[in-house]
Amino acid sequence: MERIIIGIAGGTGSGKTTIAKKIFNAFKDEAVILSHDFYYKPHEDMPFEERAKVNYDHPDSLETELLVAHVKQLKEGCAIKHPTYDFTSHARTGWVDMEPKQIIIVEGILIFTNKDLCDLCDVKLFVHTDADVRFIRRLRRDVEVRGRSMDSVMNQYLNTVKPMHEQFVEPSKAKADIIIPEGGHNVIAISMIVDGIRKKLSHKD
Amino acid sequence: MERIIIGIAGGTGSGKTTIAKKIFNAFKDEAVILSHDFYYKPHEDMPFEERAKVNYDHPDSLETELLVAHVKQLKEGCAIKHPTYDFTSHARTGWVDMEPKQIIIVEGILIFTNKDLCDLCDVKLFVHTDADVRFIRRLRRDVEVRGRSMDSVMNQYLNTVKPMHEQFVEPSKAKADIIIPEGGHNVIAISMIVDGIRKKLSHKD
Repeated sequence: MERIIIGIAGGTGSGKTTIAKKIFNAFKDEAVILSHDFYYKPHEDMPFEERAKVNYDHPDSLETELLVAHVKQLKEGCAIKHPTYDFTSHARTGWVDMEPKQIIIVEGILIFTNKDLCDLCDVKLFVHTDADVRFIRRLRRDVEVRGRSMDSVMNQYLNTVKPMHEQFVEPSKAKADIIIPEGGHNVIAISMIVDGIRKKLSHKD
Repeated sequence: MERIIIGIAGGTGSGKTTIAKKIFNAFKDEAVILSHDFYYKPHEDMPFEERAKVNYDHPDSLETELLVAHVKQLKEGCAIKHPTYDFTSHARTGWVDMEPKQIIIVEGILIFTNKDLCDLCDVKLFVHTDADVRFIRRLRRDVEVRGRSMDSVMNQYLNTVKPMHEQFVEPSKAKADIIIPEGGHNVIAISMIVDGIRKKLSHKD
């Protein structure tokens, strides 16, 4: 069985996780989602205060080589054990089994900054949403879901999220095969992409 | 029979005509391409020197209402007679019969600036190519195919093409369902879009 690897990138708050879930839901038992976020370096040697100050928007904060190895294993039909990460405590929280499936969705803001990941992806999708809308979504999520203060979200955004977006994420858009505007609400793009993947699967079977 | 209208926009030299042709070639006898360029106003009252000075990158230089009427007629299964236009003499050169087909491809730099056209399109594609690459393609085409001087191409680009692109074309990207980077060379995007259209056709039959 041939497997298809779909990469989904886009800035923070762009709606890429929603797109990933919608593509996943169209295939369910035939698909898995692997998030680059799972692969944040654990920094177990640092106290919490120091871990909170790490630049989590720089590619160096992630164990991308491990993600690349896992994508290759899934592609070859081998099960993996991927790490999990907790954003509130900034810590690796464990390891979870993942079975190989026919559709492997890899998502993360920085995945197209890594050449090995780009080369592994059969289809590279970039979700484009305007920066102000992305900030508003991130603010809501970080305050409501992750219990952060508005001030800390704004400061982190201006100090690291935005400069790292401009340095790494935005230029990586040029690697995409398809750019999806306005994230998870774009039903026409999602339905065409799902149909395109289904067609690719039928060719590969 | 239901018909599908595919709108393809993008700046000058973006590769949108190549994308239109590749989608057309995938469906051949089931498809037609209608170019907004056919609908330049004839300005028959003006001498050539004056016609050459018209701002051909402004929406007002086109008879868009006639294009809208024609798209509606094709959608309803009626044949049309569309105008033709010659860029060297800046003149309308005649009228050509077009039969209605199942896939109606409408292409032009300004098509998404018109709300009626946007509403008529079932799928809106925007071809994104960097401005420098687009200028180089335009320069080559206008010098080699249309026999223009390099100076006149550069002046027109800076005086009208670029400002009109920034005022009208680039903002209309926000209307797109799917953005295709790098124009006609993007085989993955084209094949997914063709498969998506084919799937839509099978639903509508």
